[in-house]
Amino acid sequence: MSGDLLEKARAGDKRSTARLLTIVENDEPGAAAVLRALYPATGHAEIVGITGPPGGGKSTLVNRLAGAYRERAGKVAIVAVDPSSPFSGGAILGDRIRMRERFLDEGIFIRSMATRGHAGGLARASARVVNVLDALGTDVVLVETVGVGQEEVDVARVADTVCLVTVPGLGDDIQAIKAGVLEIADVLVVNKADRPGADETARDLAQMLSLAKDKPWKPPIVRTSAQTGEGVADLVGAIAKHRAWSRESGEYRERRQGAARAEVEELLREALLRKLEGRVGDGRLNAAVARVAERAIDPYAAVEELLGE
Amino acid sequence: MSGDLLEKARAGDKRSTARLLTIVENDEPGAAAVLRALYPATGHAEIVGITGPPGGGKSTLVNRLAGAYRERAGKVAIVAVDPSSPFSGGAILGDRIRMRERFLDEGIFIRSMATRGHAGGLARASARVVNVLDALGTDVVLVETVGVGQEEVDVARVADTVCLVTVPGLGDDIQAIKAGVLEIADVLVVNKADRPGADETARDLAQMLSLAKDKPWKPPIVRTSAQTGEGVADLVGAIAKHRAWSRESGEYRERRQGAARAEVEELLREALLRKLEGRVGDGRLNAAVARVAERAIDPYAAVEELLGE
Repeated sequence: MSGDLLEKARAGDKRSTARLLTIVENDEPGAAAVLRALYPATGHAEIVGITGPPGGGKSTLVNRLAGAYRERAGKVAIVAVDPSSPFSGGAILGDRIRMRERFLDEGIFIRSMATRGHAGGLARASARVVNVLDALGTDVVLVETVGVGQEEVDVARVADTVCLVTVPGLGDDIQAIKAGVLEIADVLVVNKADRPGADETARDLAQMLSLAKDKPWKPPIVRTSAQTGEGVADLVGAIAKHRAWSRESGEYRERRQGAARAEVEELLREALLRKLEGRVGDGRLNAAVARVAERAIDPYAAVEELLGE
Repeated sequence: MSGDLLEKARAGDKRSTARLLTIVENDEPGAAAVLRALYPATGHAEIVGITGPPGGGKSTLVNRLAGAYRERAGKVAIVAVDPSSPFSGGAILGDRIRMRERFLDEGIFIRSMATRGHAGGLARASARVVNVLDALGTDVVLVETVGVGQEEVDVARVADTVCLVTVPGLGDDIQAIKAGVLEIADVLVVNKADRPGADETARDLAQMLSLAKDKPWKPPIVRTSAQTGEGVADLVGAIAKHRAWSRESGEYRERRQGAARAEVEELLREALLRKLEGRVGDGRLNAAVARVAERAIDPYAAVEELLGE
């Protein structure tokens, strides 16, 4: 069945692509086979992460970016992840459905990711989804996350270039971002740059950046207005510039290696645990867990005991 | 050194307690020894989770709750986690420092958790912190998280009783919560209940609850005003009622078993990976990762190869 799906997806059938993505997203039976079959074809897409606090107009900006890339590149995909509203995924879904309809004939593939119940976490699930899109010949994958938490940072790590989108007047939220902004952002975007306070926000960001003198890449600050489309070309340019630097400096390779390591280690952890469970049996594992829950032994003792085999 | 710290912390020294918490939170050397030494003494604290979207007045409510518990129980601790602003933890820290000063002489211990870089993730780190506080004789641990994402849900799982705090007029945010609210909430709180729209929010929640007829526990809806303290006694009562039901129905035992399982499996995963790394050596692991990054082999093939040993 997967084989058939694979062929259809490779031939450009969107329904089959969507089904494949669901399989790998939820780690359904056959997910490993799909990923194995597709893996050799991965590594060609340009992966751009767009993250930032809610209310920054990211979705509109991502739509604009997708349009811009669509004009110069071939196939473009949007992977939209919203970890801050995991219970439904409903908030942005309506928007996305409308968008999907609009973009359906324009060669832009849109995927809204459910944000709960992923084996290995959301970051791993989004990496799998990106890999499938990549292997199916997508030239640019835009990964959009909402929020500035650990989960969003982990999701962003899949990207070659991470854009952090702020807007004027977010107040304390900006403060919270600022402190760590340099850690993950390759490009800083002040969206809604026609609003009052844009100069101040840009200045604040520039000041933050000036403190980190020893960083080999100095993130540019780009002003955009997603509503009008102003500055979107500049943003595309800034992303391209980062990509070129990243390729040349070895940063690109390092990130790809980091992603590969995370993937291999995650699979190893799970495989090793399954192997051990098979070896010691459910009964012994459950008994050890029960004794830990009763405080008869501590978790470390349980692990020693189970590994003693 | 840990031995000395342990003794001092057991004797009630707050500085030593704080240092112990830092060790286990960051999984520093000695963390396992501390947790092993303390584990037999855990399992006595009542653990209450308080979660909900930002802007719900949770911190004030948690302060009130801590005060209320302090009056009837002995030692009370607050563990404050804010996954939505991980970069600094600074937003709530100022508040907390002021609170800490106020509470220092009142037997309430306050811990703000950093929200990044925890081995095994935030949920595992907060479980470790709660275990230490529990073992040191804390009677009630209040675990406060901000947000309604997967991370907050995971953190909340450490609790015996989870309170979900909403406020009137959050609009779409409430929608996002509603859809999954029944999954984790044992007690629903409408805070700022003096605001317009409180009746509507309570009615909406009640309606949602009525849809889940087959649930053995029907979460009560409690109205509070953290500012004035109104309803806080009702909330304490609702939490106690859930606890009694949970004990009787076996739910309590099931959750504790679930927490123990998560802990044992996490430790097993890490121990097994370390063992494997020791066996195959850094060189082979790095080589496999590099080949995956180059797309020479897929991650599953790398795992098979490494486990083939």
